[in-house]
Parts: sequence; C-alpha cells; structure tokens
Amino acid sequence: MNETIELLRKHRSIRRYKDTDVPEEHLREIIVTAQAAPTSSNIQAYSVVAVRDPEKRRKFAELAGNQQQVAETPVFLVWCADLNKIRSAVRLHEDTELSQNVELFLLATIDAALAAQNATVAAESLGYGTVYIGGIRNNPQAATDLLELPPLVYPVFGLCVGVPAQDPDIRPRLPIGAVYHRETYSEYGLEDEIRAYDETMSHYYATRKGGGKGGEDETKWSKEMWRRFDGKRQRDHMHDFLHRRGFELK
Amino acid sequence: MNETIELLRKHRSIRRYKDTDVPEEHLREIIVTAQAAPTSSNIQAYSVVAVRDPEKRRKFAELAGNQQQVAETPVFLVWCADLNKIRSAVRLHEDTELSQNVELFLLATIDAALAAQNATVAAESLGYGTVYIGGIRNNPQAATDLLELPPLVYPVFGLCVGVPAQDPDIRPRLPIGAVYHRETYSEYGLEDEIRAYDETMSHYYATRKGGGKGGEDETKWSKEMWRRFDGKRQRDHMHDFLHRRGFELK
Repeated sequence: MNETIELLRKHRSIRRYKDTDVPEEHLREIIVTAQAAPTSSNIQAYSVVAVRDPEKRRKFAELAGNQQQVAETPVFLVWCADLNKIRSAVRLHEDTELSQNVELFLLATIDAALAAQNATVAAESLGYGTVYIGGIRNNPQAATDLLELPPLVYPVFGLCVGVPAQDPDIRPRLPIGAVYHRETYSEYGLEDEIRAYDETMSHYYATRKGGGKGGEDETKWSKEMWRRFDGKRQRDHMHDFLHRRGFELK
Repeated sequence: MNETIELLRKHRSIRRYKDTDVPEEHLREIIVTAQAAPTSSNIQAYSVVAVRDPEKRRKFAELAGNQQQVAETPVFLVWCADLNKIRSAVRLHEDTELSQNVELFLLATIDAALAAQNATVAAESLGYGTVYIGGIRNNPQAATDLLELPPLVYPVFGLCVGVPAQDPDIRPRLPIGAVYHRETYSEYGLEDEIRAYDETMSHYYATRKGGGKGGEDETKWSKEMWRRFDGKRQRDHMHDFLHRRGFELK
C-alpha cells in the first residue's frame, strides 16, 4: 500500500477542531490542488468560497442544523456549482443565456464534487481534518444570501478544514461485494452483504472510541437507512430553490 | 509540496493505453480506496461496474461518441448513482418505496463522484492513467442495458484505467482568482481572469506536445465555452431517462 492510498484509507470525518489557524498559504495550496481535478471538457463549472469570519460560521453552523463543528473549524469552504462563470465566458462573444437542463446541472455539480474531493485529500495530506457538511442544503437560500452568490451558482456542500482535536475510529464501509460489480450489475447476495454490514456496524458502534450509540438493533445500517428514508422526503425545497437560482431540472 | 499533492497536481487525462492488463488485485485495491471516500451520512449510494469484456467496451466507446480510449483501456469502470441498494436496505424493515426528489438524486450522484475521484487518485498513485467519460450519458439507456442496471441506478460517468501509452502536458486551469472567493462571491475581475486564461490556453494549444489545435482565436477558453453552450441544450434526454429509471427531479 503506497503513501497516498494509505492516506485515503485513513479518512474519517473530524467534528472537533483545535483553535489553530489554517494559514492562507496552505489554503491556496489546497485550492490549487482542487483545481487540478478532472473537469468535464475543461469547463471548470464550480467555485469555492472560504469563510473564516466567526460570526458567519456561527450562522452556517445554525442553518446546517446546529452543527457545532462549522463554528469551531477555522475555515469553512463552501463548494458551489457555478454556471455564472460559463455564462460570463459565453457573453464575451454573444449576449445570450445558457440553455438549462438536467445535464448542465449535473456537469456543474459533478465538477464541484470532484474538485472538493481533491481538496479533501490535499488538506488531509497536510495533516488537517475535514468533514463535508451537506446540511447547508437545509437552508440553501440563507447560505446563498450569506455568500452573496449570484444567479446560476448554488451551494452544493460545505467542507470544514482544521487541525483535529479528536482521533475517531475509521467507520467501516459496506463489503466490497455490495459496491463492486463485474461486467453487469448483480443483486445476487446483496441482502446477505447488507445483513453482514449491519453486524459490522453494530459492533463498530458498540466498541468505537468515544462511546456507543443506541441499542444494538438501532445501530444496524439497514435500520438507519429505513429510519432516514422511509416515506420521508428530505430537503423538499431543493427543486424550487434551484429553479429560483436559474437551474432548470428539465 | 508533499508526495500526494504532487500526484494530484500531475493529473492529466490519458487517452492512449498500452495493451497491459490491470490485475484484479490492483482493481480491488482501487475500489476499496474509493469506498473510503466521504459519503453523506454513510449512505454509500453508489456502485461501480468494471467492464473488461472487449466487445462490451467497443460498444461503450461507440455510444460515448466513438471515444476510442474506451475500447483501448483494459478496464472501463462505470460509476453509478445507486438508490436500489438503499431501497433494498429499507425493505428489510418495511415493504415500501423511497420518496424521490432532487435531494435524493443529488445525494447518490455526489456519493458516486466522491468515490470515483478517490479511485482516480488511487489508480494514478499506482502508476495508471485515467480519463473520465461523461459521454456515456449520450445514450444512458444503452449503457443501462449493457450493464443490466436495475431501476433506481443510473450511470453517472465512466472511467478508463490503464497503463498510459502517452505523456501529455498538464492542461492549465483558470487563474485561482476565478475559482476562489473569500467570505463572499465576487465577480470583480472575473472578465480579466477569463481573458488572461484565454491567452494561457492559446499558448498551451500552440506549444503542447502532440501538436496544436485550430487557429489562435479558436483555442480561447471563452470561445470554446461559447461554441459549446450557446443556445444548445446538450443531452436533453437526461430528464426523461432519469424519470424512467425511477429518479424524480421534483
């Protein structure tokens, strides 16, 4: 196992940070490395806004569902899908609008995700801890207002970056067979893999550093998925929010 | 600059591959490393299908717009957003369906992208070259048929992995100022950054290994964006395709 693979395998979410700054020089190194990520036909349809201001981070922590780590981290990076930039480039040549559809939304969202993951790896290689904050989509309009995002830009997720003040265990993943298929997708054995993972996760929660979580049955992965997704539509405002910001999912 | 950051910065798309296999052992190492990527609340809502069969790769090359590298690469990984797996987990507890919306589509798509980018980094750390193939969305139904994907699974993009048979220059990115914002999004200077990048890209195409591309004006980034996005809706079938596969973008 080489150094890079070892680093990637060691990833875990960090939710407690030391009161230590991330120097601007490191942040720029992280972002230039993010820029080296693949991008669809070089469109680079994303932006990142670094929030250091404590009061603004406090507001982000609150709108993300009181996620204290956002207030605690020295730097909160908000990754945005950005078609405004593409529109600006196009308008250097013609006074026209982009024709929106799901594909364009996908291009920008995926570009943002690939760049953010490069940033995560770069930050961790420098010794920082990270955690993605999808919770900013709880109130994407408030996030948009705080960052003064123009139309055609939406906040996909946040990323805390800072010096870890905790050393949590690595959370086990599904057995490889539940993720990896050869030649064709096979559902054969999926139920068994899920049940095996349920046991793994129960054991993980029972023995992890920092204490357990709920009763044995409550810590099964499949039960967590059931509790989370059964009949509930989450963040049901996203379609209308995106529409208001100029993204058409048609 | 540490070893990992150096590796990430060296990324470039590889479109010519040697006739050398990627051993299954390496492929599994790459995929286990992909699994270590962050995932929204541990839902792991993605799958990857490895296509080695030459005839099937030839079909993928064709449907992606005659992208020869897909036929040439020893392994073509198709990354899929996978809610079927979540549905299977939920149904261990209740005979019910997932309530679809844009948010659920986003969760699965972002999960697939983060895992794929980890796989890309892992593959490159092992000396392989890679290139993402968004072109499989040219005909996502044919891709779905070739992989026998069940409902609630869609192919987001492909990824070629193989031993490089070329050594292309690294393609320059937009100036950091066009991507990186502090505290709030600022459009100040964006036009100048785009014009500066237009010059950088013209120079890159004029001097890169393997020869130039078009006239000077044709190689400007903003002009490429204009040609690509002016009034054209690309892959306009995606909304209906996703709907047929069970994803509701509402």
